[in-house]
Order: sequence, then structure tokens, then C-alpha cells
Amino acid sequence: MKQDKLSTEVITSSLAMLEGWKLEDDGVAIAKSFRFKTFASAFAFMTEAAQAAERLNHHPEWFNVYDKVDVRLTTHSAGGVTALDFRLAEAMEKAARAR
Amino acid sequence: MKQDKLSTEVITSSLAMLEGWKLEDDGVAIAKSFRFKTFASAFAFMTEAAQAAERLNHHPEWFNVYDKVDVRLTTHSAGGVTALDFRLAEAMEKAARAR
Repeated sequence: MKQDKLSTEVITSSLAMLEGWKLEDDGVAIAKSFRFKTFASAFAFMTEAAQAAERLNHHPEWFNVYDKVDVRLTTHSAGGVTALDFRLAEAMEKAARAR
Repeated sequence: MKQDKLSTEVITSSLAMLEGWKLEDDGVAIAKSFRFKTFASAFAFMTEAAQAAERLNHHPEWFNVYDKVDVRLTTHSAGGVTALDFRLAEAMEKAARAR
């Protein structure tokens, strides 16, 4: 399904419904830095998030070091943020809450 | 177990036994960029590598986007590269070969 790039207005109002996510300065991605108790918890989060990414066929850019996972979501084919990014962000929030 | 920082000479000869790893410019970490066929393969590699990291109690800094995993290994407590980094690098090579 072709995804349309969302307007900054829609992105801003959608971000208001999520905790700790922000629009990056370049305006083409949303990002969050997650913090867990241990590496094992951080990686368990990543495992659940990876499954959601496969289901959505939409994948994160992410960096992990020990208990920290920095996530950046963008839709390359649309050149910006789409509804898919928010669906993956929501799945990640759910995965993080389970830790 | 306290790990001693390895000399550049030892690091260089150890790197020669691994494929595609290099010493970073700052001299305190070894790094490799892995490439897989799909996100699923890349994440399966990460899952096996994460288990090795837990066994060694030594963890990577790594970045993933789709089929690519950039890894950086260093031993913070030693301020450089130690034998632990090479043990984790070898475990990662084994995990990558299984994909």
C-alpha cells in the first residue's frame, strides 16, 4: 500500500498522543530514545519490535548500547513520515510497556 | 575478570585472523559492518549475537537498518580493546556464518 507523507500539522498532533517521541530537526523522521533496566530487557524489547516491523513490512533505524535503544522511523519511499511510522511507533510503545 | 587493554600490535595481528574487522581511527574499538539478505536474517544474527553477549557479559554498540548491522566493540573499563572484544567478534562471525 502506497503511504502518503503526513503534513507537519498531522505529525505534531499524532506525536502528542505518544510519550517521548519527537519530530527530528530535518522533519523527515520521528525518533525516541528508550531506556531499559538491562541489556536483556532492551533486547527483549527489540525482539518484539522486530516482529512488529516484519508484520508491518516497515523497519526501524535503531542503535543499541547496553540498556539504551535509540529509534528513528521514516518512510523512505514517501520521503518523510507516514501513518506506517506511527503504527510502528505504537507497536514499540506496547513492546516497551511489557518490559 | 579484569581485562587488560591490548597493544596495537596484538590488536593488528588478532584482526588479521578475522574477516572484515578493523581498528577504528580512535584506536579504542574494533568495528565491522555486516550485510545480510533481509531484515529477518539481520535480526536473527543480532539475536544470536545478543545471546553471546550475555554469556560473555560484554555487549556491543550496534546500529541496524534493514539488512545492515554496524557493530562497534570496545571495553569501557579498560579504555580500549581487550580479549573480550575479540571473543565477542568471533561469536558474531559464527552467528553471521549461520545466516
